[in-house]
Formats: sequence, structure tokens, C-alpha cells
Amino acid sequence: MMLEELKERVFKQNMALKENGLIVLTWGNVSGIDREKGLVVIKPSGVQYDKMKKEDMVVVDLNGNVVEGNLRPSSDLKTHLELYKAFPEIGGVVHTHSTFATAFAQSGVCISAYGTTHADTFYGDIPCTRKLSQQEIENEYELNTGKVIVECFKDKDYKAIPAVLVMNHGPFIWGDSPEKAVENAIILEEVAKMAVISEVVNPDIRNVDKYLLKKHYERKHGKNAYYGQKGK
Amino acid sequence: MMLEELKERVFKQNMALKENGLIVLTWGNVSGIDREKGLVVIKPSGVQYDKMKKEDMVVVDLNGNVVEGNLRPSSDLKTHLELYKAFPEIGGVVHTHSTFATAFAQSGVCISAYGTTHADTFYGDIPCTRKLSQQEIENEYELNTGKVIVECFKDKDYKAIPAVLVMNHGPFIWGDSPEKAVENAIILEEVAKMAVISEVVNPDIRNVDKYLLKKHYERKHGKNAYYGQKGK
Amino acid sequence: MMLEELKERVFKQNMALKENGLIVLTWGNVSGIDREKGLVVIKPSGVQYDKMKKEDMVVVDLNGNVVEGNLRPSSDLKTHLELYKAFPEIGGVVHTHSTFATAFAQSGVCISAYGTTHADTFYGDIPCTRKLSQQEIENEYELNTGKVIVECFKDKDYKAIPAVLVMNHGPFIWGDSPEKAVENAIILEEVAKMAVISEVVNPDIRNVDKYLLKKHYERKHGKNAYYGQKGK
Amino acid sequence: MMLEELKERVFKQNMALKENGLIVLTWGNVSGIDREKGLVVIKPSGVQYDKMKKEDMVVVDLNGNVVEGNLRPSSDLKTHLELYKAFPEIGGVVHTHSTFATAFAQSGVCISAYGTTHADTFYGDIPCTRKLSQQEIENEYELNTGKVIVECFKDKDYKAIPAVLVMNHGPFIWGDSPEKAVENAIILEEVAKMAVISEVVNPDIRNVDKYLLKKHYERKHGKNAYYGQKGK
Repeated sequence: MMLEELKERVFKQNMALKENGLIVLTWGNVSGIDREKGLVVIKPSGVQYDKMKKEDMVVVDLNGNVVEGNLRPSSDLKTHLELYKAFPEIGGVVHTHSTFATAFAQSGVCISAYGTTHADTFYGDIPCTRKLSQQEIENEYELNTGKVIVECFKDKDYKAIPAVLVMNHGPFIWGDSPEKAVENAIILEEVAKMAVISEVVNPDIRNVDKYLLKKHYERKHGKNAYYGQKGK
Repeated sequence: MMLEELKERVFKQNMALKENGLIVLTWGNVSGIDREKGLVVIKPSGVQYDKMKKEDMVVVDLNGNVVEGNLRPSSDLKTHLELYKAFPEIGGVVHTHSTFATAFAQSGVCISAYGTTHADTFYGDIPCTRKLSQQEIENEYELNTGKVIVECFKDKDYKAIPAVLVMNHGPFIWGDSPEKAVENAIILEEVAKMAVISEVVNPDIRNVDKYLLKKHYERKHGKNAYYGQKGK
Repeated sequence: MMLEELKERVFKQNMALKENGLIVLTWGNVSGIDREKGLVVIKPSGVQYDKMKKEDMVVVDLNGNVVEGNLRPSSDLKTHLELYKAFPEIGGVVHTHSTFATAFAQSGVCISAYGTTHADTFYGDIPCTRKLSQQEIENEYELNTGKVIVECFKDKDYKAIPAVLVMNHGPFIWGDSPEKAVENAIILEEVAKMAVISEVVNPDIRNVDKYLLKKHYERKHGKNAYYGQKGK
Repeated sequence: MMLEELKERVFKQNMALKENGLIVLTWGNVSGIDREKGLVVIKPSGVQYDKMKKEDMVVVDLNGNVVEGNLRPSSDLKTHLELYKAFPEIGGVVHTHSTFATAFAQSGVCISAYGTTHADTFYGDIPCTRKLSQQEIENEYELNTGKVIVECFKDKDYKAIPAVLVMNHGPFIWGDSPEKAVENAIILEEVAKMAVISEVVNPDIRNVDKYLLKKHYERKHGKNAYYGQKGK
């Protein structure tokens, strides 16, 4: 039996997605990685939340081979793996169809940084990928979903903007741990909701100034962070 | 005493509608069919959910004659029966006035397939029927509601698009079992909500490409489906 | 001790407003009338719901004199009394600031009958009163609120449309009992929510046809009603 | 051990923010002041609500020096202190990122007084501050946030309008006690939600007349107030 602690954590964070209202039915999944062992723990595909147990978590290697578990892994596994390979410092990946973030993804519109709620976690707009081509969809769809995310971040810092909208689909979110990735998924949905309402309130709304974006991001991140109890 | 298992399942699925927030007061109903016996189990009309029991479910034949039960069946019974007759492979029918799906029905507007959340369950736009005529409303209204749904599907595949909006009224949803019909009703409401928000985010939004629609529908349906644990 | 049963019912229906999400803080109130005794039971003013008891209900006569109870009656009492005097067949009155109905009232816009959800309870648009004049506001404001509602209904049937929006303020709702008035308040809020969403979905939306309005209203009301278990 | 009662009250009101749905994750904070002792009790920074205890509350003096408590105070402390200094009759301050109020703040738009729900608590529009300059953000940001609020109220009565929107950020709310400040925060969010919906319902909506604003505000405030049980 391997990775018992990580399986427990990934299980709990999958349940946390549900408890935080980000999940309808069985949609969505959380994974976590053990970088030393090169193994990923991920939710099984299509299992009901009220019946899911820690033991149902599936352990795979970075090529997607199941090394432990009796169930089939999430159908989005290859997207997760692609992100772990391209973003070396992430420890957890989340996929949801949360209502407001998915509406932006469906619309092919990025979530603009309109305020400090956004800036506290996302250092800039949350981008939307390009469409996948017909060929990318018909062959190795989930792998190509991962590739198009990585392509979208080739000129962006994945640590400073830990989420993306996959066009016509929904959000993928990450963090340095499964717990942080889920926290970022909660924030993404709230920020998306606020953005829609803000655009209704003020159709001429503009992005927040760069120095405010910087100030709030750095209140919570980096060596001069002073939010919370770190270093206390 | 007949069909005890089906009565239990239909009762549970009526309660599930309420638990999933699709029902205000006593609105909405679920039925299930035993194709071998030619009998349908349906919710009684206007009974409060917190007092409803399995024993209150009404058993009727396909002509609408009550063959078991002390209460009057749902006033929408004849619509359900018409769907069971026209759609030979369905096992359950649901009617709700869920907020967002009903708003589309009231507006006489179909729910466009804007993303993969939609495509995972509905292989194309969810159509809205034509208006019923004055005569169709004044005589055999519920029967004619069924007929107008069937008419709407004469050029559509009821298995690939398991829901419809009845114009000015609300949605009817079906599936190969009462459980699947309720699941589809939950998805319909979520998809409707996402569609409104998407249209607000991007007034120029366009339907998803056909190959993405196909890909996602076939991930969950048909012989090459690979979502969930089927065949595992 | 008088009217113990009515006090219990009015207390329960005040709590039901809260349980159904129609109430923020202490806003809103329910009253009921004993027509034989000419006495009205109403919620006290500004008491927190989690501390309110049946014994806190206030009994007043139709002139507003307190005949039982240690607390001050709802500040909206005179509006309730005016409705009981003008609408001889009502048994309960409700006032809320429920979100969507209040948004229509603030906007000075009636809630149009867009579908059968509306028609099942309200036989036509739910009207919005005219503005009160400065003088009507400064002197006997709550009484004049009642008068402007009655004026609004001088060409309408209060039994067929059991609710009104008081301009810039919020809804008043009634029924033949406190229970029915609360049920109508729940429906009003849902219908208001659906109406806003419908207008967003389809800015060119039109009212439902008169014969559909009639059909649905008469399915639930009048001597040919066939919804529910009445007469069963 | 100092100020045990105030710590208990401030703790409870921080929890009340969460219970009333105004808080995502650890966002938001409540403080209270003991004017005689010149000491302020405030929530610690970034502590999870389900682990927070009364003992975690931090006691500071009006210069922001911690005089009791093991945790770092809320990063918004200096904004709170600035408000206590400038508004001598307030007893509690609240900061949230509640969804609708924050959307107005992000949009740089005041919340207009559209109805009596607003007028019962806020005697006029809820203003939005000017933007902070780059310099004000980069040096003493939280202090300058306080200053820009005070500047915004130099021609307004802080007792009659107990809330403000800080542009691009979110609301600050106050009251004569921590309890009242939280109550006002709940009302602010509801009023903001109603305002957005009202603007969708009627794009030509206008502010409520001054005499209705006055009437409703004075029903609940001042020597002629007659809402609730005061003086009873």
C-alpha cells in the first residue's frame, strides 16, 4: 500500500469541492503528486461523492499507468499529467465545471482582474485557451487539453496565475498542494461571479491598475507577504 | 400490491427533485414505467413533499386508468403517458418548473449547446416546442402537451437529447430509468443557468463546434464511452 | 387568553417566511384575521426570529387597538388592517422584502405573466402601485400604503391576483388564510426571479396568451379545478 | 486578561459574518472598540473560521500596538483604526468581500437608494471612494485606505450612511457596536443585490424620492423612531 497520506488528502479535497458547491453530480476531480516517487493520486471516474472512499483513489505513474487501485482513473487524467510535467512546482490539480468560471470558458472570454479579491490570488487576468482543432479533439483529446493549457502559459507565470479556462469546456486550477489547488478553485468561482456582476453594474468597467494588482498579490505571496500568520 | 420496487424508486426520485433544489412547493413530478406490465407509477397531484410516502404513488395503465392507489395522479399524467408511448426506450419521465430551464421555456428560446457541460448529456440544442393553439389548450391540454413534444422530436433523436422545453410552461425530461431522468433534470437546470450567464458574459457567443459536441457526448454515451466505471 | 389557535398559526407562518428564505434579519410580517370576532393577530415589530415565540404575537382590533400582547405590533399593521377591510374574503396578509419581488417594486415595474408558473397562482400581471405623494408619506404612511393598494385593485379582482408591489417599497401578499398568503409569497418571489431571467434570455419576450393564462389558473382554482386532491 | 466580554462579542460577530454567507475562506474581519480604555479587539489575520477561538482575538491600542494576543492582527487593522479615530461614535467596524457589494466597489459605482429596504438603514446612496494613487498604495496602503474613506465622508454623515465602497476593493461597514456593524454588513449586501437586479429590470430606474428616504430612515432611527420595541 502506497502513498496512504496523499490518498487521504486527495480524497478529502475531492469531498471539499463538493462541500463548497463547486460540483454537480460527479463532475470535477482533484489530484495530487508525490514528486519524489513520480506518482499521482487522482479521483476515479464517475463515482458518486456520497459513496466515494479514500480507497477508491487511483495511483498512477506519470505515463498514466495505474499502479494501485481497482477503479478507472478520472477521464481527465492525461490533462492533469501534462500539467504536472510542464509546471514543475505544482503539487495539486483541480478540474471543475463550477457555474460562473465555466460560463466564462464557454464564452471564450478571460476573467479580467477587476479588483483586489482577484489580485489577492491571481496576478493578472485568468486566461482562456484557444479552441482545440478538430484533430486535437478527435485524437488524444485529454492530452491535447493539457498541451493547449501549457501553450497558453508559455508567456505567463503559472505560479502567479494558478488557473486557466479551457475554451468551451471549463476551468483547470492548480497550486503547490491539493489543498491550495482547491482553495484556488473556490476563489476562481467567486472571482468569476463578481466579474459578471461587475460587468452588469458597469459595462464600461476597466481592469484594476497594475500597482494595486501588485500590492495585493504581494500582500499574500512572496518574501514580503504580510497576510496570515506565516513566520509568526 | 404491485410494482413495489418501482413505487419505491419513483418515490425516492420525487424526493430527489426536492433535495436537489428543483422544486418549489409541490411543483414537479417523476414517473417510471414497467414496460412488461404496461404500467406507470407516478406522483400524486399536489401532495406536500414532507408528507409524501411511497404508498401515495399512483399506479396507472397506459390509458391513464388508476389501477392502484388512493390519490389522484399528477395532473400532468397524460403528458407522461404520451411520452412513454412515443419514445419506446425511455423508463422515466420528469417534469419540473426549475428556475432557469423554465425561464428559457417562458421565453420560447432553445438552450444552445455552448460547452462540454451541455455536450456531456445533450447532443445538440435543447429545443423549445411551438405554442399550443387555443383549441389544444382548451381540450385535452395535457395530452396535447405530450403531442407537441413528440411533434418537436419528429426530426430529433429523443435518446440523444433527453429533454424539451414546453413553450410558456417548463421542461420535461426523460431517461432510461427514473433515476437517469432525474439526473438529466439536474443537468438541464445547471446547463440552463450556465447558458444565461454565458450570454451575459459574451452577447456574441456561438455554439460549440460539432466535433467537440460529438467528442463529449461519446465520452459518456455509446459503445466507445470511457467516462465512469462501466465495463470495469 | 384569546385566539390561541390563530396565534399559533400566525407564529408558524412568520417562521415559515424565514425558513423559505424570504426574510433578511427581522424584515417582513404575517397576520391572520378572525372575521367573526373582528380581531387580527400580527407579528410584533422588530423581534428576532430565533427568539420569537407564539406568545409574542399581538392581537388587535380592526381599529389597530392592541387587545392582547405585551409587544408593539408590526409597524406595517395599518396596511394589513386596510387590506382586511377592503378585501372581505382574505384571511391572511404577508409583507416581505424578498429580493426579486422587491427589485420589481423598486423599479416601479409590474411582474408580467410570462408562463404557467405565474398563471397557476396569478391570473394576470402582478401590478405595481402608483407612488405615494409626499403628503401621503408624511402623514399616516402605513394607512396610505394600504389605501394605494386598494386603489390599485379598484379595477382588479383581489382573489385572482393575490399580491401587489408597492412602488419603491416591496410586495404585499394575501390569501384566504395565513398559510395560503405565505404560499403565495413564496410563489411571488419565484415568479419574480423567473421573470427577470426570462427578460435577460429574451428581451422581446411577450406575455402568455390569455387562454393559457385562463387554463392554468382554472386548473388550480374555481369549481372545475383538477389539480391536487380536493374533492377526492 | 483584558476585555474578555468584548473579545467574546467580536469573536461571535466574526463567526456571524461567515454564518450569514458574507465570507469566502478567511476573507473579512470584524473589530470592536472599548472607547474608555482606548483599545480595539480585532480578528487575527488569515485564520480559518472553523478553527478560530475567542482567545485568538487580538487586542491593540489605537496606534496598532498589540497589547494582548499571540497572533498577528488582521492586515486591515490600520484601516479600522483610522475609522475609529475619525468617526468618534462608532463601536464596531466590519470589512468583507461580500459578492454584490464588492462588485459595485470593483465597478467604482455607488449603490443608489432605490427603495425603502435601502432607506431603512442608509440615508442616501452608499458612496464609492476615489481610487488610491500609486503612492498611497505603495506606502502605508491600509492606513491610506482609511484616509480615503474619511475623505469620502467629509461632506457626509457617517452615522446616517454607515458603509462605504473602497474602489476596486470592497466594502467597509460600521455601527455603534460590532453587532450593529455586522447587521449593517448583511443589509448592505442585500441592498447591493437588489440594486443590480433593479437596474436589470428597469435600466431607467431612478432614486427614491427624498421624502420617502427620510420617512423610512426616521421610522428606524432618531427620536421619533417607531420600528421595533425600543421605549416599550
